[in-house]
Amino acid sequence: MKHAVTNRIILAGFLLLLMFVQASAQTDPLPSWNEGPAKKAIVEFVKTTTDKTSPKFVAPEARIAAFDQDGTLWVEQPMYTQVLYCLDRVPAVVKAKPDLANVEPFKTVLSGNREAMAKFKMPDLEMLVAATLTGMSVEEFSAEAKKWLDTAKDPRWKRPYTELTYLPMQEVLKYFRDNGYRTYIVTGGGQDFVRLYSQRVYGIPPEQVVGTAGGTKYRYTKDGKPYLLKEPKMLLNDNDAGKPEGIYLMIGRRPYAAFGNSIGDKQMLEYTQAGDGARLMMLVHHDDDKREYAYGPNTRVGTFTDALMAEAKKKNWTVISMKDDWKQIFAFEK
Amino acid sequence: MKHAVTNRIILAGFLLLLMFVQASAQTDPLPSWNEGPAKKAIVEFVKTTTDKTSPKFVAPEARIAAFDQDGTLWVEQPMYTQVLYCLDRVPAVVKAKPDLANVEPFKTVLSGNREAMAKFKMPDLEMLVAATLTGMSVEEFSAEAKKWLDTAKDPRWKRPYTELTYLPMQEVLKYFRDNGYRTYIVTGGGQDFVRLYSQRVYGIPPEQVVGTAGGTKYRYTKDGKPYLLKEPKMLLNDNDAGKPEGIYLMIGRRPYAAFGNSIGDKQMLEYTQAGDGARLMMLVHHDDDKREYAYGPNTRVGTFTDALMAEAKKKNWTVISMKDDWKQIFAFEK
Repeated sequence: MKHAVTNRIILAGFLLLLMFVQASAQTDPLPSWNEGPAKKAIVEFVKTTTDKTSPKFVAPEARIAAFDQDGTLWVEQPMYTQVLYCLDRVPAVVKAKPDLANVEPFKTVLSGNREAMAKFKMPDLEMLVAATLTGMSVEEFSAEAKKWLDTAKDPRWKRPYTELTYLPMQEVLKYFRDNGYRTYIVTGGGQDFVRLYSQRVYGIPPEQVVGTAGGTKYRYTKDGKPYLLKEPKMLLNDNDAGKPEGIYLMIGRRPYAAFGNSIGDKQMLEYTQAGDGARLMMLVHHDDDKREYAYGPNTRVGTFTDALMAEAKKKNWTVISMKDDWKQIFAFEK
Repeated sequence: MKHAVTNRIILAGFLLLLMFVQASAQTDPLPSWNEGPAKKAIVEFVKTTTDKTSPKFVAPEARIAAFDQDGTLWVEQPMYTQVLYCLDRVPAVVKAKPDLANVEPFKTVLSGNREAMAKFKMPDLEMLVAATLTGMSVEEFSAEAKKWLDTAKDPRWKRPYTELTYLPMQEVLKYFRDNGYRTYIVTGGGQDFVRLYSQRVYGIPPEQVVGTAGGTKYRYTKDGKPYLLKEPKMLLNDNDAGKPEGIYLMIGRRPYAAFGNSIGDKQMLEYTQAGDGARLMMLVHHDDDKREYAYGPNTRVGTFTDALMAEAKKKNWTVISMKDDWKQIFAFEK
């Protein structure tokens, strides 16, 4: 027994030594990033807020970093992934309620005319969301959406949507977490939709996803089993001013870092910046039409207006150029 | 250098050995609990869900335990602590808006007649909450409430309200956390009020507090600094069915254990029980008029009806008798 303990001590010592050596090795936490102001801003922020001797040190429990999802962590063109899910659900919905086949916007969806669909206005989208994402238990919703996520593929890259995440941003998520930050998704997308894959895809647990949220209603089945029914009622519209409001509701702490890519992230970045000490505000700019997309003021989604660019300059937010700052876009490349 | 490394290995080995010895020591995780069915239920639940060889093992990331606050973690008589805060704020509110002095319910509050206040109906309380907790920035709210929490004292025990937590429940919180559970407060009280002290008082970080939540509005000061204004608008009434609905909204996972003390916790316990595998549902019963309070069906707060007791029996929920199960109520005793 005494011998076993000695062996254990020696083994433990070697393991510690190994960890020490690994930690000392100079490894680049952001290998998919080119050297430049964007990469530098990230690394300097993390170093200064986690160095105990720094006047801008942030206590571990307060280390919160907020990330928009669509266009910031993964592809949002030509349509938000969740909208594609709603469209794909329409035939099943119409099968259950055949009268809808002749009612807009369902009629257009069934016609398959993507150009017409791209012109849907907010009331159309709200009707689609209500019809395809509500009126069922949260378990039914999860099962359906998971099935779709496992099988649906993006037509350009011919891969599941969940593989279309940006490798450089995955590195940022990991780098922040390795330095004691809790990474939150703060998305205009549906909170319970994103929660289905956030752990698997981003390493972010469901409770760290803040998103647009509908209400649920507590009900009982005929045999008395309780369940939550998804209702067509908006509790939180997690866009624009809704992002800081959602952060206050769901986290109750101001983030130290915030990443976005569109005008809908402006208030989240402002709110982050309004805190004390070191704060990091960054915007992903889609300027790479070869490897991904280039889009700006005139797109339906991910609007990056000239006003936003001016705001970024004025407020010292760092703009990430996908073209110049990212060596590689997706993990599956090369 | 080589010598220093060897020393470090030996030191590390001793530290590991020390940890090993400490872990093996048979210490009672719930020393303020008498032996009995309640204590047994807690210990068996934790053991069976954290033992890898158990068929009811729960993966660490899914280990969620939900605790009602008022009457479950701390004293709720003769009034909820947060209601006392609202009442104490009334003079300052009336000073700013003198017309309110002659308007109910403010007039009664100013009269100091506690018996009359105890008869306030829901609309009265809503007016008080709106007047005392909204119409200010979240920072102003925090500063005011913190000041009060630091100075106000319970008249019976002559101590800050934050010391009136139940020692046996503090042990349960710690025991769960030591076994990889994340402990959440799920309270009918104001979410942002409870978040102000949850870390200090219960070791629960603000983002793990789910409570009744009002809306906020994103605004700018005259010099362009953004802030969140607390609005008199209810987003989540975290009582009754609102508890499972709030859990879905804020956590997105079903708890494995739920502790409550009143009819308002019934749905949370039902929802917890409706999950697979081992689940723990417990109710604190206030039956100790000497050391705390004895109350049941006829109280304004913490209503423990005969119907709830019958429900507990039927559904196999464990009732905790404060009188019989708890050796000591408060940490400051003896």
